[in-house]
Amino acid sequence: MLECEACGELYGPRANIHVCQCGEPLRFKYLFGEIKEGTGVWKRYADFLPFEVESDLTIGGGNTPLSKAPKLSDDLGIELYLKNETMNPTWSFKDRGTVFSLRRALDLGMTRLGTVSTGNMAASVSAYGANNEMQTFVLVPADISEKKIRQISIYGPKIIKVDGDYGDLYYESFELAGENIYFTNSNSPFRVEGYKTIAFEIFEEKLPSYVMIPTSSGGLFRGISKGFRELEKSGMIDEMPTLVSVQAEGCSPIVEAYRSGHEEIKRWSEPDTFASAISNPYPPGGNDVLRKLDRYDGICVGVSDEDIIAAQREIANEGIFCQPSSSVALAGLKILRKQGTIENGSDVVSIITGSGLKTRSAVDLKDVINCGLDNLEDCLDRFFKYSK
Amino acid sequence: MLECEACGELYGPRANIHVCQCGEPLRFKYLFGEIKEGTGVWKRYADFLPFEVESDLTIGGGNTPLSKAPKLSDDLGIELYLKNETMNPTWSFKDRGTVFSLRRALDLGMTRLGTVSTGNMAASVSAYGANNEMQTFVLVPADISEKKIRQISIYGPKIIKVDGDYGDLYYESFELAGENIYFTNSNSPFRVEGYKTIAFEIFEEKLPSYVMIPTSSGGLFRGISKGFRELEKSGMIDEMPTLVSVQAEGCSPIVEAYRSGHEEIKRWSEPDTFASAISNPYPPGGNDVLRKLDRYDGICVGVSDEDIIAAQREIANEGIFCQPSSSVALAGLKILRKQGTIENGSDVVSIITGSGLKTRSAVDLKDVINCGLDNLEDCLDRFFKYSK
Repeated sequence: MLECEACGELYGPRANIHVCQCGEPLRFKYLFGEIKEGTGVWKRYADFLPFEVESDLTIGGGNTPLSKAPKLSDDLGIELYLKNETMNPTWSFKDRGTVFSLRRALDLGMTRLGTVSTGNMAASVSAYGANNEMQTFVLVPADISEKKIRQISIYGPKIIKVDGDYGDLYYESFELAGENIYFTNSNSPFRVEGYKTIAFEIFEEKLPSYVMIPTSSGGLFRGISKGFRELEKSGMIDEMPTLVSVQAEGCSPIVEAYRSGHEEIKRWSEPDTFASAISNPYPPGGNDVLRKLDRYDGICVGVSDEDIIAAQREIANEGIFCQPSSSVALAGLKILRKQGTIENGSDVVSIITGSGLKTRSAVDLKDVINCGLDNLEDCLDRFFKYSK
Repeated sequence: MLECEACGELYGPRANIHVCQCGEPLRFKYLFGEIKEGTGVWKRYADFLPFEVESDLTIGGGNTPLSKAPKLSDDLGIELYLKNETMNPTWSFKDRGTVFSLRRALDLGMTRLGTVSTGNMAASVSAYGANNEMQTFVLVPADISEKKIRQISIYGPKIIKVDGDYGDLYYESFELAGENIYFTNSNSPFRVEGYKTIAFEIFEEKLPSYVMIPTSSGGLFRGISKGFRELEKSGMIDEMPTLVSVQAEGCSPIVEAYRSGHEEIKRWSEPDTFASAISNPYPPGGNDVLRKLDRYDGICVGVSDEDIIAAQREIANEGIFCQPSSSVALAGLKILRKQGTIENGSDVVSIITGSGLKTRSAVDLKDVINCGLDNLEDCLDRFFKYSK
């Protein structure tokens, strides 16, 4: 059963639909339950999942580590944990959503999978599509770089470069697809079902006071929010953590509406940020994120590209190389700590959404020196008192 | 206690040593035991591990999925499973070895970590070094590309470009380091202790008849071999799987010696293969791999770059984007099936050593077409009978 997050319209369990007729996102009904015996989130949280996934999930996904970040914790006067989604099969959190979209597509008897994406989601859908022998279609903007296509193309999907408004394509793809292709675009209700398992895994290890969530289409925020809400409704937690939505200032329609007290986002005219993976100018889940920020006393903050780049290096200094679109969350956390909005000593989880390998060219080189094999000792002596 | 694999020389438990005085690799003593209750290889196989690692292992590592490869299984007439080491914290199997090297370095009271590597191992050592606040040194050849350095540099190590024979640097680094830096180079005995956990995880899921192992320095082969041997010595398996060492023909000193019946490898004069991550011309564990192939009735095979590239795409078609240095194993498997060396219906595990994201530029673009937003329906009609 799918329900519109805004107008409450209901759609039957077999409806092949992704967005409400009113334009707002759909939500799968709330699920309640108990944690089961066993290993891994798919088994333990089966009560909370719309499908049984374990046996078909042949390439894995989910069950990522929550790592302590000791240096940042000290620096910021909090306990910071990093939820490392870069350890998924295609190295981003998108895999969790793809698993559920795929299950849904198979349940509806579909044989073709599609997505509108230029990055993480395209790679994820192509990988799971290939693994499940579904013909897979990826719609990308006509001006996409060859480099970006490469990591999608390897999985063998049909890649269609579309000349036209890429924002409109999101909605048009659903129309176009009909019963031909199951399109799993960002923010789709079954993607959200996958993303909510991040909340369950965090809860298993450490229920924090704050969760920092990089936000673009809004699907990840909606997923984590639904996950904690279901834990609360099932009586397993007394209170949800405070959810913090972080956007890059260069494309921050949700932050803008939040600051102005508007209930609806406005299309961002010219996205301009280094964190290109979260630069959706008109997030399909944007209004719903605003509603949830309001309902659950969430926080919303924008960050500069300069701070995003610095944060990426600080996270690498804890051992995790993430995308700039992931490090926005730490950049936001630093602002909220400075403001005192997040209290000293708080437990905070930051979602590391995807691997930095995908956007390597952005990394500055530091501490690279040249040396001859014969004078390596002198060279090391520059760094510490070398003694043979 | 460390023992030389060739001459049997013993070194005390606190010896800061990596290679025997005779030049051959050292091995940590065999460990025996039982599987313990709990989740994950570090807990369950604690009896078999030289250190307790769980609590300090803040960025995770190990416990990767074993995925069925349904299409390749059908094509090859076997049951093929892919051990997906791309889901480690720095996206290669090297992390398992780094965990143990790091534990060893800390136990010896060292505060600096070093490695001689241009790729996966350098990234891994830099990440764990950063996480553990150790000053980290990476020695790379002077002519390394900027691109390769980038994914290492992000973690903040000191990168020293060394002008001189890079092969010699392997041994010289140990000399040079002394008590100043703990150098964890490929094939080090504590790396091998980490790699053996791959054997334990495979055993937990499915004991196969064959394990396909991409081989360069020999450390991974030696690790997996030691893991299965310990299971056998502990009475947990009756017989070790047949281990298959696969090298790229463009740099295959072990294959060459195996074919000629020699007991020692010869330095490969001019490495020339697309699978650059496994192009060590003078593998420090090469002679020991030959000994183990002989002792355990292993198989050794070389593969062409053409077959490596084809195999990379076939593995992606199962949902996993791996490095060419990983797909050598599938290329080898195909040869052995064709020859009938591996029997119809066999259970086979192939080790997927590292993520393809690291070497994206090698991917050919396929199935990319252009289309206007207005004529998407016609475009889709090229692929299937499109009906609105």
